[in-house]
Amino acid sequence: MSMNKDQQKFMRKAIAISRKSVETGGGPFGAVIVKDGEIIASSNNQVTKGNDPTAHAEVMAIRKACKKLKTFDLSGCELYASCEPCPMCLSAMYWAHIDRYYYANQKEDAKSIGFDDQFIYDELDKPAGKRSMPREQMMRDEALETFRAWTEKSDKVEY
Amino acid sequence: MSMNKDQQKFMRKAIAISRKSVETGGGPFGAVIVKDGEIIASSNNQVTKGNDPTAHAEVMAIRKACKKLKTFDLSGCELYASCEPCPMCLSAMYWAHIDRYYYANQKEDAKSIGFDDQFIYDELDKPAGKRSMPREQMMRDEALETFRAWTEKSDKVEY
Repeated sequence: MSMNKDQQKFMRKAIAISRKSVETGGGPFGAVIVKDGEIIASSNNQVTKGNDPTAHAEVMAIRKACKKLKTFDLSGCELYASCEPCPMCLSAMYWAHIDRYYYANQKEDAKSIGFDDQFIYDELDKPAGKRSMPREQMMRDEALETFRAWTEKSDKVEY
Repeated sequence: MSMNKDQQKFMRKAIAISRKSVETGGGPFGAVIVKDGEIIASSNNQVTKGNDPTAHAEVMAIRKACKKLKTFDLSGCELYASCEPCPMCLSAMYWAHIDRYYYANQKEDAKSIGFDDQFIYDELDKPAGKRSMPREQMMRDEALETFRAWTEKSDKVEY
């Protein structure tokens, strides 16, 4: 498909953020969130600068957009990412109900400069018991009591 | 396997946090991060209270642990989650290099009270072009320039 001028403008902004991030000590990634043709939030990757492994550009942009719109639901929003989202970011975009996204660099490009999102995609693909991170289930009966309390709560905010 | 008293204590804490969260308007989830036998961070789910769809208990606990330890690398840490982590949280745990995790409720339990993590697991399983969230690639050539700048940068902080 051919991209229109607005789409190019939004992606160019995401790429400019990623470039500035490299120059200022962040990771080489940028993201922009657009609603009704306007940029409502943007961010670079702040993992190393902020000591926060969850501070990918997409996640940070989602947090800022939600704060601005005072909602946890970004239905009606589109995300422009300078690189294909990793599984954490893509999952966050699902939880946030982002409508659609555009990306520039692809995950193979990220891998070639040392960011191996594919490793996590591969891990998630495996049955839980076969993944490299060990896990154990315990005390399910006690935890189920919380879920029962949730079910019985009449004034809860669901999402 | 049989869980030792410390493990039970840590999980009981995660469950207590999930229970308190229900009572105080958060989502019914809690997480605790342990290093060298001590709890270093914990959180409940703050999605609806904080208007942040990324504020799952595990993500928030990771953020707090990293802030406390002044690092983006939680190698040597274990995570106790009152419920099996969703793909966003599990990916965040991989990025943070959590050693291993324990969980109580399983994802089927979460689904039965309205939290369908399985939907996102299923989406990630699909080839990108078959997922329900539409996407398009654009302007890769311009974005690759940023990755080249990253590669050429000599004083970067890698992760």
